[in-house]
Amino acid sequence: MKEFDTIAAIATPIGEGGISIIRVSGKNCLVIVNNIFKSKNHKDILDIKPYTMKYGNIIDSNGETLDEVIISFMKGPKSFTAEDTVEINCHGGILVTKMILEEVLKNGARLAEPGEFTKRAFLNGRIDLSQAEAVMDIITSKTEKSMKAAMMQAEGRVSKEINRLRTKLLEIIAHIEATVDYPEDDLEEMTSEKTYEEISKILKEINELILTADEGKILREGLKTAIVGKPNVGKSSLLNSLLEEKRAIVTEVAGTTRDVIEEHLNIAGIPIKLIDTAGIRETEDIVEKIGVEKSKKKIEEADLIIFMLDSSESLDEKDLEIIKYIKNKKYIVLLNKVDLPKKLDFNDLRDIESKNIIEISAKSGFGTQKLKEKIEKMFFRGDIKIKEYIITNTRHKAALIRAKINLEDAELAIKNTSAIDLASIDIRNAWHSLGEITGDTLEEDLIDKIFKDFCLGK
Amino acid sequence: MKEFDTIAAIATPIGEGGISIIRVSGKNCLVIVNNIFKSKNHKDILDIKPYTMKYGNIIDSNGETLDEVIISFMKGPKSFTAEDTVEINCHGGILVTKMILEEVLKNGARLAEPGEFTKRAFLNGRIDLSQAEAVMDIITSKTEKSMKAAMMQAEGRVSKEINRLRTKLLEIIAHIEATVDYPEDDLEEMTSEKTYEEISKILKEINELILTADEGKILREGLKTAIVGKPNVGKSSLLNSLLEEKRAIVTEVAGTTRDVIEEHLNIAGIPIKLIDTAGIRETEDIVEKIGVEKSKKKIEEADLIIFMLDSSESLDEKDLEIIKYIKNKKYIVLLNKVDLPKKLDFNDLRDIESKNIIEISAKSGFGTQKLKEKIEKMFFRGDIKIKEYIITNTRHKAALIRAKINLEDAELAIKNTSAIDLASIDIRNAWHSLGEITGDTLEEDLIDKIFKDFCLGK
Repeated sequence: MKEFDTIAAIATPIGEGGISIIRVSGKNCLVIVNNIFKSKNHKDILDIKPYTMKYGNIIDSNGETLDEVIISFMKGPKSFTAEDTVEINCHGGILVTKMILEEVLKNGARLAEPGEFTKRAFLNGRIDLSQAEAVMDIITSKTEKSMKAAMMQAEGRVSKEINRLRTKLLEIIAHIEATVDYPEDDLEEMTSEKTYEEISKILKEINELILTADEGKILREGLKTAIVGKPNVGKSSLLNSLLEEKRAIVTEVAGTTRDVIEEHLNIAGIPIKLIDTAGIRETEDIVEKIGVEKSKKKIEEADLIIFMLDSSESLDEKDLEIIKYIKNKKYIVLLNKVDLPKKLDFNDLRDIESKNIIEISAKSGFGTQKLKEKIEKMFFRGDIKIKEYIITNTRHKAALIRAKINLEDAELAIKNTSAIDLASIDIRNAWHSLGEITGDTLEEDLIDKIFKDFCLGK
Repeated sequence: MKEFDTIAAIATPIGEGGISIIRVSGKNCLVIVNNIFKSKNHKDILDIKPYTMKYGNIIDSNGETLDEVIISFMKGPKSFTAEDTVEINCHGGILVTKMILEEVLKNGARLAEPGEFTKRAFLNGRIDLSQAEAVMDIITSKTEKSMKAAMMQAEGRVSKEINRLRTKLLEIIAHIEATVDYPEDDLEEMTSEKTYEEISKILKEINELILTADEGKILREGLKTAIVGKPNVGKSSLLNSLLEEKRAIVTEVAGTTRDVIEEHLNIAGIPIKLIDTAGIRETEDIVEKIGVEKSKKKIEEADLIIFMLDSSESLDEKDLEIIKYIKNKKYIVLLNKVDLPKKLDFNDLRDIESKNIIEISAKSGFGTQKLKEKIEKMFFRGDIKIKEYIITNTRHKAALIRAKINLEDAELAIKNTSAIDLASIDIRNAWHSLGEITGDTLEEDLIDKIFKDFCLGK
């Protein structure tokens, strides 16, 4: 295990709560915390047993008590970072937590960079890169499905699959090299046909992994959804009705900001990221003419467009223009206010696939269940059960695509020349590409970049 | 110790961070957590030693892993609630934390009410009411001084002082009763003069405690400060320059909301609560005419008014009207833009105390140090050192004032009638009033009300 300096940071979310934790990791963590900790029996904590706790006070340099705390000690390698780690559990105020952190820093720890604790777990070999990335995904996941996918990745199931494929590739390379270098030996010969066949098998597996990535990306980043339609068509009511369930949950957890509530929805386990909810409310408040250009921009950005029409009104030119515009995207057309007499001419909707039209009453909630089912159907092949592994990370998908291209090049080389030693270079590249997922073959500065996106204290 | 049911809640602030904690307190906590916890060695945790930790996974009812966690166990009475307590340290995501809490609830715990953990510590006799209140003050404190005052209260220093006074009152009562009931006995007689003298001594001490409360209230709730002045006079620049230092700190701690940043300042340890900072920015953005009525309303609410004038302009009627209005409040007049040629006529400021006028340049920062020193001088008698005890809580102050009135009534009764047995009733009332601070004599529904204001998870 490498020896690093001792780092510290606030590990809990910042805010007012019952408890906050300052995490200190590195070989000097016990000595540093011992300097500022006074246990009730005045004994020091240098001989504290691993996985035990001590109750006492944190004392500043003037000898004044900053807070009552509980210290816990995890001895490396059995800790999150795989190094000696002390956690200080204190009262959960913003200021008190910050002041204790400052005492820790004054006594020789360095403020941890974002993601540095997880980075150490990686550098110390406890987890690989895809597992480290999954840790962040768990923290930021918005629905149960995305959380479970992240959890599986954290447990190393993606890595296991990637490593299995890489081992296979290495075997092929070894076979090819033996055949080329020692043709006289009595080895089973690696013919170009056989190599081709082996590569094709792996290619198929990589393609299947890539196929999981579309679902995976939605699970991880949310389905970017735009609700468009003219003012007073009922967008705001729809939003409220979709948010209703969510609000009830959120009210329980004080401190969640309104932005977070409004932008993220969970529909049948699919995290929905609404584009410009503020805009929806605005245009409902001030009855202004529809900004067609603005709607087009939102449509461009979105993975899914929910286009809302008032079935008690005739369509106008602007509606027809939007209909033309969404045709090549994934869309759902909602006919709202079905409780009112219908004026809308269905001929105007001839360009819209009828299975994508849903009648609703945003006010009463009629039809919203159908909308949810529709969204689920459109984005998941059946009722998605999280598989043993699912690619949720676009970086992983990109690496898989590179590996795929490498192997297709290998296939091409064999087809064109039958020279398996030429293919061997491409196969090695594929092995390298896959290694970027687990971090085995990724350069240091790229690794640094990945951890920089982590949150502080992780 | 009373036996309560087992309660659970998320104890860390809600948000995305490295670690969150679900706290479970009550006699069944181990059994409940054991149901959903799978340790690495598959042993259960029912025989876990107090103050030790176990690493493992939380499993849902389908046998699926929800998260990797560390379980820690604190055996009552050596825990925050003085009951058996299990804490589950999990990854700090909003969803994952909530899902683990749900599993805990499904297995028999009840969701804790706000403040219920601290309430149990109180009901189980580990801390008294003023200590319990101090726990919340620590969490919400905004400056070091207010935190230290809360810490001292949490350590029981206020309670100790109150209990000392109550014991003295009881002694006087006992003496009076003995004198009245057994006049024939050979007891040292409690004369009315002596009683009066004893009461006066205690009254003096209570008055001194009440005097600390003004400073205490500012430390606890912040000094309500209004920055007023016409548009473009430089209010926004002043705000920015005062916030500058703060912003640097806040940037370190991601997740702090903008509101929190903008409304709270720390000037020489004094928490400043700015009134209507949004208003300041607005009026600077849209150059609108000054709303004198609006300013007056802000001035009414404030403990301190910072009135800003542009020294490069002459005063107009509106300025003069504000000057008249602030005269009877605590105020500071800032003459901004001192770097420009002066046009302001000092005769217009004749109603303003000259020691309350400070020349500044909000843009360059000139004079802001002087402003800070002025604020400190105005609100604290000397460089306030936190005493052994300081009354920060208005509820405590109210109880002290009631005790004061009770004792003044006792003095009056003695003066008018020399009947010490009449005074005895008032003294007993004072003893009761002081007991409300520590919770000894407070009724249950009032105690409930106090804990309801606590945050969730505490």
